[in-house]
Amino acid sequence: MLPEVLISEVGPRDGLQSVKATMPTAAKLRWIAALHGSGLREIEVASFVPARLLPQMADAAEVVQYALTLPGWTVMALVPNRKGAEAALRAGAHKLTLPVSASEAHSLANVRKTPLDMVEEVRAILALRDELAPTAKIEAGVSTAFGCTLQGVVPEDDVVRLAAALAAAGVDDVGLSDTTGMANPAQVRRLFQRVRAEIGDKTGAAHMHNTRGLGLANCLAAYDVGVRTFDSSLGGLGGCPYAPGASGNVVTEDLVFMFEAMGVRTGVDLQKLMAARAPLAEGLPGEPLYGMTPDAGLPKGFAQEVAHA
Amino acid sequence: MLPEVLISEVGPRDGLQSVKATMPTAAKLRWIAALHGSGLREIEVASFVPARLLPQMADAAEVVQYALTLPGWTVMALVPNRKGAEAALRAGAHKLTLPVSASEAHSLANVRKTPLDMVEEVRAILALRDELAPTAKIEAGVSTAFGCTLQGVVPEDDVVRLAAALAAAGVDDVGLSDTTGMANPAQVRRLFQRVRAEIGDKTGAAHMHNTRGLGLANCLAAYDVGVRTFDSSLGGLGGCPYAPGASGNVVTEDLVFMFEAMGVRTGVDLQKLMAARAPLAEGLPGEPLYGMTPDAGLPKGFAQEVAHA
Repeated sequence: MLPEVLISEVGPRDGLQSVKATMPTAAKLRWIAALHGSGLREIEVASFVPARLLPQMADAAEVVQYALTLPGWTVMALVPNRKGAEAALRAGAHKLTLPVSASEAHSLANVRKTPLDMVEEVRAILALRDELAPTAKIEAGVSTAFGCTLQGVVPEDDVVRLAAALAAAGVDDVGLSDTTGMANPAQVRRLFQRVRAEIGDKTGAAHMHNTRGLGLANCLAAYDVGVRTFDSSLGGLGGCPYAPGASGNVVTEDLVFMFEAMGVRTGVDLQKLMAARAPLAEGLPGEPLYGMTPDAGLPKGFAQEVAHA
Repeated sequence: MLPEVLISEVGPRDGLQSVKATMPTAAKLRWIAALHGSGLREIEVASFVPARLLPQMADAAEVVQYALTLPGWTVMALVPNRKGAEAALRAGAHKLTLPVSASEAHSLANVRKTPLDMVEEVRAILALRDELAPTAKIEAGVSTAFGCTLQGVVPEDDVVRLAAALAAAGVDDVGLSDTTGMANPAQVRRLFQRVRAEIGDKTGAAHMHNTRGLGLANCLAAYDVGVRTFDSSLGGLGGCPYAPGASGNVVTEDLVFMFEAMGVRTGVDLQKLMAARAPLAEGLPGEPLYGMTPDAGLPKGFAQEVAHA
C-alpha cells in the first residue's frame, strides 16, 4: 500500500543548522542512513550557504552526495539564493527549497530583499535549473506565512499573492511555513484553501512549528483541507525555540504517530524511526531531544501496518 | 459576547491528586481565586475520596465551600462512589463528575466493579442527588474511552453502549476521557459523533491527554464535531505522565491560546490565566509545570477580545 501522506524530514538541515554544535560528517551520514531505513521518502539534508555563516553546513555537498546513494527517496537542499542553488544543483540534489518571506520586514532583515525581489531571484534559479539540472525540482517555501515576530500580523492577501507570483514564475510547488509558531488551525485551513484556489496542485508542504504547542493541531488542520506533505524534524530539533522545552519544529515521531494512529499511512516504521534518535544523540551529545511518543512509548495494542513502497 | 467554548479547569482536582506533595489548603484557595479571576467558568476543585487514600484531597469540603463563594462559575467535584457523592452534595458542589470506565479490565482493577455495576452506582447517586440536592448536576465521565493500558483496544461499541446506558440512567451529561493518551483525531471525531447520535445533547466534555503530544489535535477534532466543553489543567499538572516532560493533561494555557487564536471565544483572559501559574508554583514548590505558550509568550500582534459574561 502506498503512503497517503509524505513526511519530509528536515532535521539534518533545519535541525543541525539551528544548534551550536557541528555534527561530524560521518555522524550525519549514519543518522541519515537510519532515517532512510525507517521508510522516510523525502529529506532535507543540507543548506547551501557560506561556511563562514553556517559552519554546521560546510559539508553540504558531501552529505547530499551520500544521501543520493540511498534509493527511493527525494534528497532536498535549502538554498537562500542563486549561488547556493548552483552549488546544490551541481551536487545533484533532487529538489531545492528556497525560503521566500511573506513579511516584508522579515525578508528585508533576513536577505535584504523584498518578497518581490525574491520572486526575481526564484526566476533566475529556475533558469539555472533548466540549464544545469533540468530534472531537479524547485520548491518555494513561503516563510512567516502565518505571522511574523517583526511585523506581527501578515495579511493573508500578501501570502496568497506571493504564492501566486511564485507559481507563475514556474516553481514546482509552494509550501507555507509557520516560521514563528504563530499559526492556528482556523488560519491554516483558510490560508491553504485560499492558496489552493489560486495555484491548485502546486500547493505544497505544511511546515508547522510547535512553539506554542499547536504543531500537530495545525498539521491536522492542513490535512483536513487536502495538504499531503508535512515537514517535521526528528526529536523536534531546530526551528526557533524561544525557551528550553519549547521546541520549534514539529516532532517527526509524534507526527507519524498521529497519522498512523488515524489510519493514514505514512510509509514510516515508527519503531525504526524512534531508533533513529540514537545516531542523532550520538552525533550531538548533550543536545536535548523532544517528542512525547518516544517518551511514552507506543500504546498497548497499537499495530502499525507499514507500507512497503 | 458570550464564550463559545467552556474550558473546564481540572488542575485543583486531577492535578493535585496526581502529585506526591500536598498543597496546603490556603495555597489551594489562592490558586483557585486566581483561576476564577482569569475568567474560567467551570472548575473541578476536589475529589471526595478517603483521606487515607488521597491525603491531598483531605480538605475537599473546605475547598468546595470556598470555591462556592466565588460568583459565576460551576464548582465541580469528582466522586468515585455513593459515599463520595453524599459528601460532595452535602458540601454543596454544583456538579459531580463520576468516572465510569469503558474498559472492563480497567474498571475491575480500579473500583472492583464492571462498567454495568457502575451504571447501578450512578442510579443510586442520582437518587441521592434528588433527595439531598435536586439542583446539583451529575456528569458521568467515560474513562479509557479511547484505549486502555490494560486491555489495549476498547471497542467503540462498548463506549457507545455505556454512554447510552448512563444517559438512560438519567445523568445530565456524559463526557469521554482519553485516560491513557491513546486517542487520535479520527477516532475522536468518530466516537463523539456516534455518542451524539445516541444521546444527543447529553454529550459532554472532551477530556484529552497530551501523553503522546496529540492533546490539542484531539481537542480540535472534538471541536470540529460539535464538542464545546474541554477539560484541561493549568501547567498540564496531573493526568498520567509516563516520563518527565510527557505531561498528561492538556495544558489549559495552550488550549485557551489555540481557541482564542482561532477566534473561538473562551471567556478566559490569557494573561491572567498565565499569571495563575504563580500561586500554583508557590503552593507546589519544585513541581514541574508544562505549557508552550507560557514559555514562548503571546505572539506579537496577538489581540484577545475577552468576553465579559
